[in-house]
Parts: sequence; C-alpha cells; structure tokens
Amino acid sequence: MTCDMNLNTFLYPKSVAVIGASRDKKKIGYQILNNIITNNFRGKIYPINLKESEIEGLRAYKSIANVHADLAIIAIPVNFVLNEIEKCAKAGVKNITIISAGFSEDGEEGRKREEKLKMLAKIYRLNILGPNCLGMMNSANNLNATFAKSEIKKGRAAFISQSGAICSAALDWAQGKDFGFSKFVSLGNKAVLDENDFFEYFAKDKETDLVVAYLEEIEDGKRFMEVVSRLSKIKPVAILKAGQSEAGALAAMSHTGSIAGSNEAVLAGFKRAGVIVLENIEEMFDLLLFYGKHKKIKGNDVVLISNAGGPMVATVDLLSKNGINLNKFSRELVEELKEVLPGIVKVQDPLDLIGDADADRFKKAIEAVLDDKKVTNVLILLTPQTSTEVKKTAEIISSLAAHHKDKVVFTSFMGGKSIKSAKAILEKGGITNFDFPNKDVNILSKIINYENDKKKLRIYNSGKKHVFKRKGEQLDYIETFKILKKFNIPAVETHKVTDQNDLRIMSYPAVLKAVGKKIVHKTERRAVALGIKNRKQAEKTLKEFEKILTDKNYCVSQPMITGDLEMIIGFRRDKSFGPIIMVGMGGIYTEIFKDVQLGVEDINSVDIQSMLEALKIYPILKGARGKHGYDLKVLNGIILNVMKLAQKRTDIYELDINPLVLKGNKIIALDARIVI
Amino acid sequence: MTCDMNLNTFLYPKSVAVIGASRDKKKIGYQILNNIITNNFRGKIYPINLKESEIEGLRAYKSIANVHADLAIIAIPVNFVLNEIEKCAKAGVKNITIISAGFSEDGEEGRKREEKLKMLAKIYRLNILGPNCLGMMNSANNLNATFAKSEIKKGRAAFISQSGAICSAALDWAQGKDFGFSKFVSLGNKAVLDENDFFEYFAKDKETDLVVAYLEEIEDGKRFMEVVSRLSKIKPVAILKAGQSEAGALAAMSHTGSIAGSNEAVLAGFKRAGVIVLENIEEMFDLLLFYGKHKKIKGNDVVLISNAGGPMVATVDLLSKNGINLNKFSRELVEELKEVLPGIVKVQDPLDLIGDADADRFKKAIEAVLDDKKVTNVLILLTPQTSTEVKKTAEIISSLAAHHKDKVVFTSFMGGKSIKSAKAILEKGGITNFDFPNKDVNILSKIINYENDKKKLRIYNSGKKHVFKRKGEQLDYIETFKILKKFNIPAVETHKVTDQNDLRIMSYPAVLKAVGKKIVHKTERRAVALGIKNRKQAEKTLKEFEKILTDKNYCVSQPMITGDLEMIIGFRRDKSFGPIIMVGMGGIYTEIFKDVQLGVEDINSVDIQSMLEALKIYPILKGARGKHGYDLKVLNGIILNVMKLAQKRTDIYELDINPLVLKGNKIIALDARIVI
Repeated sequence: MTCDMNLNTFLYPKSVAVIGASRDKKKIGYQILNNIITNNFRGKIYPINLKESEIEGLRAYKSIANVHADLAIIAIPVNFVLNEIEKCAKAGVKNITIISAGFSEDGEEGRKREEKLKMLAKIYRLNILGPNCLGMMNSANNLNATFAKSEIKKGRAAFISQSGAICSAALDWAQGKDFGFSKFVSLGNKAVLDENDFFEYFAKDKETDLVVAYLEEIEDGKRFMEVVSRLSKIKPVAILKAGQSEAGALAAMSHTGSIAGSNEAVLAGFKRAGVIVLENIEEMFDLLLFYGKHKKIKGNDVVLISNAGGPMVATVDLLSKNGINLNKFSRELVEELKEVLPGIVKVQDPLDLIGDADADRFKKAIEAVLDDKKVTNVLILLTPQTSTEVKKTAEIISSLAAHHKDKVVFTSFMGGKSIKSAKAILEKGGITNFDFPNKDVNILSKIINYENDKKKLRIYNSGKKHVFKRKGEQLDYIETFKILKKFNIPAVETHKVTDQNDLRIMSYPAVLKAVGKKIVHKTERRAVALGIKNRKQAEKTLKEFEKILTDKNYCVSQPMITGDLEMIIGFRRDKSFGPIIMVGMGGIYTEIFKDVQLGVEDINSVDIQSMLEALKIYPILKGARGKHGYDLKVLNGIILNVMKLAQKRTDIYELDINPLVLKGNKIIALDARIVI
Repeated sequence: MTCDMNLNTFLYPKSVAVIGASRDKKKIGYQILNNIITNNFRGKIYPINLKESEIEGLRAYKSIANVHADLAIIAIPVNFVLNEIEKCAKAGVKNITIISAGFSEDGEEGRKREEKLKMLAKIYRLNILGPNCLGMMNSANNLNATFAKSEIKKGRAAFISQSGAICSAALDWAQGKDFGFSKFVSLGNKAVLDENDFFEYFAKDKETDLVVAYLEEIEDGKRFMEVVSRLSKIKPVAILKAGQSEAGALAAMSHTGSIAGSNEAVLAGFKRAGVIVLENIEEMFDLLLFYGKHKKIKGNDVVLISNAGGPMVATVDLLSKNGINLNKFSRELVEELKEVLPGIVKVQDPLDLIGDADADRFKKAIEAVLDDKKVTNVLILLTPQTSTEVKKTAEIISSLAAHHKDKVVFTSFMGGKSIKSAKAILEKGGITNFDFPNKDVNILSKIINYENDKKKLRIYNSGKKHVFKRKGEQLDYIETFKILKKFNIPAVETHKVTDQNDLRIMSYPAVLKAVGKKIVHKTERRAVALGIKNRKQAEKTLKEFEKILTDKNYCVSQPMITGDLEMIIGFRRDKSFGPIIMVGMGGIYTEIFKDVQLGVEDINSVDIQSMLEALKIYPILKGARGKHGYDLKVLNGIILNVMKLAQKRTDIYELDINPLVLKGNKIIALDARIVI
C-alpha cells in the first residue's frame, strides 16, 4: 500500500520518539533507544514512558502528545499499539515503525488488528513500517532504529528483507566483514509500507548504488514491475525470493496446473523489471561483497591471471559455461607481456604465470594488463606454492588496483593458513577475494547479464487497476474456438456433432473428440480418435463416444491435420502480476523438456522474438542444418494476439493452446482450452 | 603403469634417503629433509650430498650406495636424475620419488628423458612417483616427504592430485582448518606410478576412509574402472576432473563429433566406477570437511531444525530439488516434541523453532529428534536473533551430537561477528558447519547418492588389453546395414540403386538417399528424398541426385517408414575407457535437448534399463497419460546388441544409428553410420 507522502521524513527524521523506551536492558524498548543514542543519531530523541522521567541520560516523556517527533517507533505490548497510533496521529506524527508483534502473523485476532491498523493508516495518512519487524537503519543520518545488536556503518548497498532471520544474519555478517549499508529495512508484515515503496525511494536515493532484497511474496506485482523497472534502469536490484525453485524446473506446464502459479509469474515479473535473480542466501552475500567494492562492471570479458594451472583450467570452463569471454589480447599487450615475462609463459588469456611465479612476475603481468585500454575486468587466481610470495602479491594487487580505479580487479586466493594475512590486505585494498573462483565467476556473470539486459529494459507502465477473477470453470469447446477466431488466432475448423446426421458434412481423414467440462486431458480419457478415414469409421467412433458422453459433454469433428512441429501457447492470469503469456514446445514433450518462455502483459514483437530465441527449440523454429524453418513473423503475430485476447477478455483466467502445429509456413491451433 | 611390487614399502619406508639434501634453506633438498626431520619420521634418515658430511645434525653420505634406503627422494638438477636412478637401483632402492622437473612437461628433450626414466623403471622394477611433483606424505608413520611448508596431521582422508597448485592449496587449506590427511600424494607427471596404483592401495589402507583426487587425464580407463569400482565398494572416491564441463552440457551428439570425446568417456567411466563427481574446487574442500567428521551417512532423509523461517524455506526447496526427503516424524516423536515445545511451534519436519528460540528450546528439540530411532541425519540452521543464545546453542549441539555418534549432525550458522566463537565450538565438537545451508545440502546429496549407487555397483573387470584403432574412414553404407543385420539390430531394407533399372524393385512410398564418404549429414546436403510416391518421381529424384554423385557416392532406396518416436543409439570407442555405449533422444531434437545416457562396455540389461529410466523421455518410452508405451524389452535387446557389436568388431571406431524409430511395438533403424 502506498501513501501519498514520500519516505523522506520517514528515513531522515529530525526527531525520533521511542514509545515503550525502557531502562530494562532486556526490553526491546531499551535496545532500540540505546541503538539510536550510541550510533550518534543527529536529531532529537524522545523516550516515551509512562513512569520514568529520565532514561539513558535523556528526558523521558509520558506521552507522544508532549513532543514533536518526525518518526515514532512503537515497541509496546500489542494490545496498546492501535491506541498509541491514534495518539501519534493526533500529535501530528506521520511516520511510524511498529516493532511489536501480534498482528496478521498471529491468528484471527491478529488479522483483525492488522486490518484496523491499515484503516488507521488510511484515515490519518500514515507511513507505517511493520508491524512485527526489526526496524530500520539509515547510515546517512546515523539512525539505527532497530533492536539488533549492531553498529551502524556507511555503505552503498540498500537492503530490505521480509524475514527477520535474514535481517539478523545480514547485520551480523556485515559486522564480521566490516561492511556497511546505506539503508537497512526490516519490512515485517508489510501492513502499510511494502517493498515497492522502498524500491521507489531507492531510485532517487543518492546514497544507494545497489539494492538487495529478500522477499516472500509480492502483492502488487504490477506496481512492482513499474517501480523496479525504473529502478533497474539506474542501479541494480537483486532479489532472493523465498520458495523459488530453479528457473529450469519452474516452467511446468499449464495443463498440469503448475505454470504461472505465482512463482512462475514472479519470475516473469522479475525478468520484466530487470531484476538480478538470486538463487540462495550465499549468493546474496557474495553479490553484496562484490558490489560493495565494484560499482561498475564494464565490458563482457575478463582477463584471467594465475600461478595455478589446474584451478585456471577449471575457471576457464566456468567462464565459458557462463558465457563470459576471455580477452583477445591486443598486439601491443602481447608484445609488452612477452618482454616482461619469462619465455616459458604462454602469452594469452588465460595467462598462466606458472607455479614458480614470484610477486615480481605477478606485478609485471598485472601492470601490463591493467595498462591496456581494452581490458576492463581482471580476475587473479593464486595458490600458495613454494615460490609464491603471497603477502607481497596481495600488496601489489591492491596497489595496482588503486591506480586503476576504472577497472575491476578481483581475486581468488585459495588455501588457508598462509593466505590469511593476504586476504586481509586485499580486503583493505578494496579487492573482493572469494575463497574459490567459481564464486567470482558466478557473481561476475550475474552482473554482466544485468548490464546487458539493462540496455534493452523498458519502463513498465502498470496502467489502470487490473482485473482478476477466477470461477474455475472450463469454457465451452466451440465457444473457445470462436474466441480464438475473433482474435485472429488460426484454429482448425471445428463442428459440433450431435448425431449421425452431423457426420455428413465431414471431410476425411478426420478427427472426432469428446469434449466437455469433465474431459480436460482428452488423450488420457481416450476421448480423441485420430485419422478417421471414412463415414463408416466415424459412425462407429461416435457410438463408442456416446458411452462417455453425458449432457455436459458432446462430440466435435475436425479435419485431420499433422504438423512438423508442435508448440504450446497461452496465458494465465496472475493475481499480482496480471496475465503471464507463455510460448514453448508443445505436444508430448511439453512436460518433459519444459522448454517454455514467459512474458508479461505488455510484451511487444521484439520481446516475443527474444522469447522465441530463448527457447531451446529455436534452432528448429529458425531452421538449421539444411532444414527449412517456420514463419516466425506469423508465429510472433499469433502470440501477440494471445496477449491482446488476455488484455481484452479480462473474464478469461487461462488460455491453453496445445498443440499449435507448424507445418511449412502454416501455423494452426488444433486444440485449446479456456478457463474463466 | 603398474609395478608388480605393492606400495607398502613406498608409503611405509623404514629408511629414507634424500638425494640432494642441502644446508641451503632455499633449496628444495633442504626443505624436504627438514620436513622429514621436524615431523618426527619414525625411521632412519640419510641425507645424500657430495660435499657435506653433516646436515641438520644428521650424518650425510656421499652416495646412495653407502646406505640402505627403502625410499629415495631425488631433488637434484634434472641432468643428473637418470644417472642417480641407476645408482639407486644398483644400491637396491626400489622406491623413488622424483621431485625434479624437466621431463615430459618440458619440450622434446624432456619427453625423451621421461621415456628413458620409464625404461629404467621397467628394467629395475622401480616404484617411481613423479617426476615434477611435490612429494608425498603418510601421516601414519609421520613421513612428510614433500617440500611444502606444512606440518603433518593425522586424518582419515587420502588425497592425490595431478596438479601441484591444487596440492599447495589443499595443504594450506588443511592447515587453516586443522585438518589432516591419511596419505597425501602429488602425482606429478605420472611417468610410472599413477592414480590407479594409489587407488588400488587405498582400498586396503586401514587409515583411509575417503579418497579425494584431482586428475587431469586418465590414461588407463579400463584399469581405472576396475580398481576404482572395487575401491568405491568399500569407501567413497570423489574426483575433480579438470576441463570437465557440467554433466548436462557434455552430452553433445555423436555426429557433431562431440560425444564420447574423452570427457564423456571419463564421465561414463566415473559412473561405472561409482565415483562421486566433483564440480569445482570448493566442492572438493566442502566434501573433505564434511566427510572428515562424518564417516557414515545412513538413510535418505534429513531432519531440518531452525530458528530462521526464511532460510528454512529456501533449504526445503534445495532439499527437494536434490531429491532428499524430509523425515516423516513418528507418532512418538510428534508427541514428545509437542510436550517439550511451545504451542506456537508447528511440529513437523522442517521444524521451525521460531525466531525467539533460546538455547533451551533448541536443546529440547534436538534431544527429542536425536532420540528417535528413525532419525539419522539432522541439519540445524541458525541466524543470530535477539533471543538467540548462539554460543550456548553451539555447545548444546556439540554435546548432544557427541552422545549420538551413530547420527550425523551438521549445521549452518549464518552470520558473521556473533557466530565466530560458536563456529569454533562446533568445529571442536566435530560438527561440520557451513556458512550457508546450500553447501550442506549439496554435500549431503552427493553422499546419499553415492551410498545408494554403491548398493548396485558391480566390480568392473578390465579383462584382456583392449584394442584401439581409428582410421577415421566412413564405412560403405550397404556394408553398414549388413553389419547391423548380422548383430540383430533391425534396420530398414536398403538397396543400392545404380541406374533406373534398379528402381523397378522398389515399393512405394519410398526414400532415396545419396550416400558416400563425403555425405555425412545427408539432410544438410539435400541428399535425402522422402515420401517418393511412384516410379516417375523416383526417376526424377535419381536424376537430381546424379548431379552430386561421384564415383565414391551412390544412391540407395529404402521403403518410407515413419515412426512415433525417434531415438539415437550407438557407440564410440575411447582410447582409455573402451567403447562408450550411447542411447538417447534422436531426430531433430538430438542436439537440442542432449537427452543422452552413456554406459561402458560391460553394461547388462539392468544397466540398460537404468540408462533408459534416466532419460528425460523415459515417460514417453514407458507410456504415460493414456498414451501407449513402446517395447522396452526389445529396445533393451537392441542396445545390448550394439554393445556386442562394439565388443566383437574392434575394428569399428564408431557406430551411430539415428534415427532408430519406434512405432507401436516396432523398432527399426532408418539410418546408420560407421567409422572405422
């Protein structure tokens, strides 16, 4: 939910009241107050407590009504919270953080309480963070309004999380690494302020270069796409979505009921918004660590320098698997390296300095490489061998990197005991060092992909409030085909067959199908007869079918058409993200290879072409190895029509065309299903 | 290369001579001697040096001839090495480690030197490790015969590596973690002793519970499979193979020249030998860490206990993705947990103890879970929240685990600053703690898979020396089909068509193909005409073809057959591992989905069934969703016949049947290619 005020005063209050401030060190009300004081908040601090007149050297007040606070933090038993909010509102407080739990996460009573809370926020136009959260921090004004044992530290990454456990881990991790956040927000129940409000703010926040979020659900997917596509255009947004399975496994198919379940919709929305999708918590921290030190990754390639042959080969494998190129050394660089390196070193990227490389050899190589204009990213691998001067090499890397701030230098020093101090030197020198090169490669590829996608990213326009309805009823089969026709989606001619007389108008070979609400997977129920050669056979089939036909089912005839390639296209409407358009490999392979691409409602022909190109079967669609391809323009137009159908017929929940057969230049839907 | 002596004296010498022992601390000859002395080797030590009479307090000798040594370590300039080996042999030394470099890794001269070295080893029946290696360690007799700065420490994992860089990283890593190896071997150039010799030894080594190896190539794949399948039956063998790409990406197809390139063969061999395949260096160390503390993983499931909801959900996702089950809590366990835990905790696996769980709540939960007989593996996730008693919880976990040594307890404490000391407590308590739960899950799944595969593992019998020939010539097309027939592989009837007269015997619809040595990919060269309806069309086609026919190409006719499903089967002979049998999805999708399974020469019907079941298209083969399946017994038999063909026709390098079409119960090869 969004309020018409922006978050400026919320994040940069000039005065803060802690309602429930306490002298008892075990109480959250103490911990928050203490955090605000000890981190040297630059504004006024008002402890609010019914009994005390002084807490932690500050004058305490009996009521919020007695002070003027830009922000109130509420940490009192849940029963008193709503009352206190009204008091805040009447005292002119517009920004509130509710730490207290006991709302929607806590049964029916809690749910009702949260509804009342929302109502109050609406009536009084309040920015409310939480309830049931850890609080928030803004390092730009030394405000640590959380109850976590944590010192504030400046940094360039903003962090928001829906999970308190993740917040705790992140703050603790950051303290271990001496890492700082620009803003740190624990969202809690998201009763009023949600991720979108903060994403919107971060777009203009000059203190923030990177946004990292942990989210469990996204209620307003359309606003999410609008806000985050705008944000992604400016700075990277990386999100770990809980309950999300691997991209490859998710694209289960529509007719098994697992496509465009909200998870698939979320991923389609993430793609649309230019989000860096995080796979696990480790990646989240790795990205923070890397980005904390390297604001800009330029270029798609990397120079690999190493004294360790084995790990280098393994890393080259990983780079190629992730689509990251090695650098094609310029002639000048080759000459330079040949001059400074021993003859046994093969001058190329990857640059293997050989196991006996000392610090000086590393220096000469890295210096020459960094001096080359076409080099932008340099990854240095090291294992501590007999001649290796680990510490000295770390110092050299730090100092050379400091002289080439426009380039990204990162490392993987592998080992344990003897690289400990070198790691500290690298860290101090602003070099990201990962324990193993697979981590460097993983993060680098995520950032390179983001930078490439960013160029093509359009701002999403969420438009008018979208409609979401679902009766769960299957539409009549003939009616389904009429709708397809209306939206210029070519479909096979389909006639209702009620008795033997209707067989007269059929042409052979033909197909007879028993259709109806209870016959979803026709092939399973043996309700499809293919390749019927003549009238006699048709009559016999019809009789067979009559056994399974009830008053809700009936029989249809279609001419028999076989294609070279079967596809699936369609959409499903997601409550949060709107219609999710789908295209993929159809027929018997649909569920086996899950070769499906998804898009949201506003895709255009260019997006559809990208979706087609991202399909594994694209080489077949396009035509390869002497085989003819198919008419991709027509296919593109059909998918666009599916989208138009989804836009106009908001009463339709789901459309599933499978198979859509392709044969030469012809494309035609042979079967379809609509659920309203 | 194997010697008839075993490695017992090599690894457990009673006396060691260091040839090239030196007083100069910079020299390797000093470093090795020093390592042997300072690690308290339990046998006699003889420094060999032409000039000195005493080194490091030990009497030095002018020549190896003056002492009796079970093992000689040679660290002298390369020019003197061969001469010294002869001296060793004449002095009765049977075991030698050559540290010196300058052999096959160093140009033509080096290669020749290594050949001479091999000859000497053969003549004198010497066990030689190296050359160009770091040396070896055996913690069981306090022998550190390497030049790495490293203290020996007892442990239960044996480590061998072909890369010196990896050796250095591993030793340094181990020192940082206080981790010990049972045996540690740097293989170097593998001129005489190779991985197989050590694998063979480790099978009977009572000091070793786990074998981890880094290998760059495996020269004798057949012996590898024999030795390692025997070893895997007893203890796990995990191998990181350099240059190996992801299993999913490797199965590129035969006719593009990328299948059964040695990498695919290696993976087939690894599978046959029951190897745990490592994907990167990080995994290698993670596995060592985990296995170093947990000898036996029993059962396929895990109990997940956590105070962190978000990370818990993410971990459940990962577990399910890796096929690891959660525990179905017994009724007794449920009762017990309900009694000891607060009502708000939902008693199930995963067990979310809620963010405010203190050490006592952890204790009660873990205690009850560990007391349950059906629980074997317990994974505990923790993030440091306000009520979390991090250190105390770590102590409780350590102590409870110590009382349940038959169970595997491992953890992921996520964070930084406040979990540092807890991590040390866990480490001391023999608990593996990973920084992030994805690592726990990854390693657990590798071990569970190993334990499951082990049950089915048969010992491989390498049999007689295998033949490997490759002319690189394509066999005549008609001849190819004759061979298929001879081995009972059903193939379409194929006739040579030299002129219009031959068209008389054709039945229609028919297929005409131009075949020959230069026409490999027929569809690409437009050398296939499908669905020829009559003689007239056939004549026209033949005329068209005559344009591309030379004396080496000719035309064949086949009846037109269409199937429901196209497969690819065949084999390619690998120099090291022998014939690699392949079965997979054929036709136009072969290269797109790379749905291929590989096996080695001795697979039986059960293995073939497993290969078929591992194919993604297996549900189609078997029949699913109301669709009929295919005759898998017949298919199995055909693949067995392909293997027999590979065994008997050792002159054939490669056979490639694509497509093999399946239609109802019929299976027939429509096209085939043999390369000799």
